[in-house]
Amino acid sequence: MEAVAKSAANPMQVIRDFDYGTPKRENGRTIREFSLTAGTSAIQLNSAVSYNIWDLNGRIPGPTLRAKQGDRVRILFLNKAGHSHSLHFHGIHPAEMDGVRPVSNGSATIYEFDAEPFGVHLYHCHIEPVTRHIAKGLYGMFIIDPPTPRPPADEIALVMAGYDVDDDNHNEYYAFNGLPDYYMDHSIRIYQNQLIRLYVLNIIEFDPAVTFHLHANFFDVYPLGMTLTPNQKTDVITMGVAERHILEFAFRYPGKYMFHPHQDAIAEHGCMGQFEVVAD
Amino acid sequence: MEAVAKSAANPMQVIRDFDYGTPKRENGRTIREFSLTAGTSAIQLNSAVSYNIWDLNGRIPGPTLRAKQGDRVRILFLNKAGHSHSLHFHGIHPAEMDGVRPVSNGSATIYEFDAEPFGVHLYHCHIEPVTRHIAKGLYGMFIIDPPTPRPPADEIALVMAGYDVDDDNHNEYYAFNGLPDYYMDHSIRIYQNQLIRLYVLNIIEFDPAVTFHLHANFFDVYPLGMTLTPNQKTDVITMGVAERHILEFAFRYPGKYMFHPHQDAIAEHGCMGQFEVVAD
Amino acid sequence: MEAVAKSAANPMQVIRDFDYGTPKRENGRTIREFSLTAGTSAIQLNSAVSYNIWDLNGRIPGPTLRAKQGDRVRILFLNKAGHSHSLHFHGIHPAEMDGVRPVSNGSATIYEFDAEPFGVHLYHCHIEPVTRHIAKGLYGMFIIDPPTPRPPADEIALVMAGYDVDDDNHNEYYAFNGLPDYYMDHSIRIYQNQLIRLYVLNIIEFDPAVTFHLHANFFDVYPLGMTLTPNQKTDVITMGVAERHILEFAFRYPGKYMFHPHQDAIAEHGCMGQFEVVAD
Ligand SMILES: [Cu+2]
Ligand SMILES: [Cu+2]
Ligand SMILES: [Cu+2]
Ligand SMILES: [Cu+2]
Ligand SMILES: [Cu+2]
Ligand SMILES: [Cu+2]
Ligand code: NA
Ligand code: NA
Ligand code: NA
Ligand code: NA
Ligand code: NA
Ligand code: NA
Ligand SMILES: [Zn+2]
Ligand SMILES: [Zn+2]
Ligand SMILES: [Zn+2]
Ligand SMILES: [Zn+2]
Ligand SMILES: [Zn+2]
Ligand SMILES: [Zn+2]
Ligand SMILES: [Zn+2]
Ligand SMILES: [Zn+2]
Ligand SMILES: [Zn+2]
Repeated sequence: MEAVAKSAANPMQVIRDFDYGTPKRENGRTIREFSLTAGTSAIQLNSAVSYNIWDLNGRIPGPTLRAKQGDRVRILFLNKAGHSHSLHFHGIHPAEMDGVRPVSNGSATIYEFDAEPFGVHLYHCHIEPVTRHIAKGLYGMFIIDPPTPRPPADEIALVMAGYDVDDDNHNEYYAFNGLPDYYMDHSIRIYQNQLIRLYVLNIIEFDPAVTFHLHANFFDVYPLGMTLTPNQKTDVITMGVAERHILEFAFRYPGKYMFHPHQDAIAEHGCMGQFEVVAD
Repeated sequence: MEAVAKSAANPMQVIRDFDYGTPKRENGRTIREFSLTAGTSAIQLNSAVSYNIWDLNGRIPGPTLRAKQGDRVRILFLNKAGHSHSLHFHGIHPAEMDGVRPVSNGSATIYEFDAEPFGVHLYHCHIEPVTRHIAKGLYGMFIIDPPTPRPPADEIALVMAGYDVDDDNHNEYYAFNGLPDYYMDHSIRIYQNQLIRLYVLNIIEFDPAVTFHLHANFFDVYPLGMTLTPNQKTDVITMGVAERHILEFAFRYPGKYMFHPHQDAIAEHGCMGQFEVVAD
Repeated sequence: MEAVAKSAANPMQVIRDFDYGTPKRENGRTIREFSLTAGTSAIQLNSAVSYNIWDLNGRIPGPTLRAKQGDRVRILFLNKAGHSHSLHFHGIHPAEMDGVRPVSNGSATIYEFDAEPFGVHLYHCHIEPVTRHIAKGLYGMFIIDPPTPRPPADEIALVMAGYDVDDDNHNEYYAFNGLPDYYMDHSIRIYQNQLIRLYVLNIIEFDPAVTFHLHANFFDVYPLGMTLTPNQKTDVITMGVAERHILEFAFRYPGKYMFHPHQDAIAEHGCMGQFEVVAD
């Protein structure tokens, strides 16, 4: 079934795929142009359940946009998703660029602002009902790197989201990076003693908060990625909706290690994955 | 309809209304006497829904009491609200002043203790079921200022609460300072580049936690207002029931900016507002 | 009724009962051997409701295991509880010791690893559905002491858990240390001005988070017990599932003081207790 290869939900591609846009020079500074097109597609949540989503550039979650603090960012947003939508960015910007006004189907707009402050941020549609526009797929991560780059690491993006397939304001499925349980069958391969830098975002609507847990290890927390030094070491971190952090760790021993929210009902409905640590 | 002018829910009045009580000198120290009377009234949650609440001094939320660390605080509590109630203060005090004993309808009591430690605290009725006695309106903010005052700022109090109008332990409506959606229609006017000091309290029962979000900006967090330096900069902060913080920020650009819990179902049921930033 | 004396739920015994295992010397280092046997029993949640649980060494919660950082820990796990179970420890260990593989009824296994890092950790069954295997009783606290002991204090363990007696993924009862409302009728006696060191664990499934509150006082938070200095003073702390902390305080005045999650519906369904502070 070739449809699988073209699915908007492709978790293995999402983990290390960062979109730096198209850099340009204008008036002596760097402008990064990003192009985001909202569309519609269907994904298979499991062998029995297909679900109609809104995608961005054919992806769910949308592209992980990435810039450096101080870059100018220009997002060309084209809406081909059949309803009015918008892109609201977390970050600092003027009211006109806040992305709360509807962009009607078939039309386009430009969001432009300075990339600041450095950290792990996000964007999402802000059209009412926001719960629905988010839960159907219109969200993504927005990373702003600090002026001096962070130390080298194996960098991985993890977006936690929910699927309310029967529109009752309660999620039946959950996923890391788009598909329930995907990383249980397809472990994320990492190397023993290698520094791992997770960029983790919680955009699960309808559940107040989740507590991200990593097995058999502890991680350093850089809150919102807005600091260069960690403020805590832990193996559980509670994240409300739209919270996001950098989590750093290395595994000392090879083998398979699960990660999941410790609200275990959420884990057992799809928000579950594992690392496979390969001996170095 | 003159009833509107007299409503217990009057969000525009609440934001900058601080009750310093009546200061007296006794034995060489400052005593602040506050008078709080519980009563009953009805408020309009929207044009179709009226709801019977318990108010304090004719307000919901109750008055924002304010003292300086080290002051003696004396609260004269008069219960005219038809059932037994009490006032339990968060803070340090002897067991006799803890406000867990019922004060029957028509009677009064005095709570007296030293104001400490400085921070953003709260008071609420502690009669069972506490969920119901809180959700029907018996709560308020209690600010204790540090010995050396904080720097000048435009100070604003925001109390998040829920309304369970059909008594099913689930909120149908939410509000900042008493009325659903009020600050969407009546923006809170602030000035560009002016330091804003929000005193924010989450007293929403039946929902485990909310994540307060401010658009297009980041704020400094003074946890529980119990520090003089912030411990984090963020644009989202998760707050369990009875959590409260000082959040400081200034807007660089004029315009309108929303604030709301990022549990968007809660926002869309009334816990939504906006600042209008006026050019300086 | 002698059954009471033999109940698996015995909160008064749990508070100050630390299991240091059997220390042995092997190859020049300390090994602590612990023996944990899963069984079945029934407890009385109140005078009308009996509930079948899985216990560990005849207890709910399971024993509070305790070692010093750097000790080798060896847990002999014997499963006599009728279904497959396992013990998954939070901490650092190789994948083989992660406790995610089923141990069938009637068989045994050994988990062995170095005790690190110091802090308040936990263990629990990791067999699916994990929610059910936890909620029916297979969890306990696992304290690793720092190399230099913490200052002397009256140390008390508090485990918050829920009971979903009708299997609808919603808790009808809650408890500190096994029994609803127990410490309301049987206050925990402590002394005025005595340093109290609470080890608090939230292992309530089906609720996203709770906010632990202590009346009339503030406590120092040592996050996960993984630091030797506190990072916050507060009277409310929001804890997701599997979060745990050290909380330190002393009471200045004698009398009775409640503690409970400030999600008051949870408190009023059994997660409620009080200290009785005895004059020194
Ligand atoms: Cu949309
Ligand atoms: Cu684990
Ligand atoms: Cu009351
Ligand atoms: Cu925003
Ligand atoms: Cu089990
Ligand atoms: Cu209290
Ligand atoms: Na649903
Ligand atoms: Na776990
Ligand atoms: Na309701
Ligand atoms: Na937003
Ligand atoms: Na239940
Ligand atoms: Na309280
Ligand atoms: Zn459903
Ligand atoms: Zn957002
Ligand atoms: Zn797990
Ligand atoms: Zn209802
Ligand atoms: Zn309270
Ligand atoms: Zn918003
Ligand atoms: Zn039930
Ligand atoms: Zn766990
Ligand atoms: Zn209380």
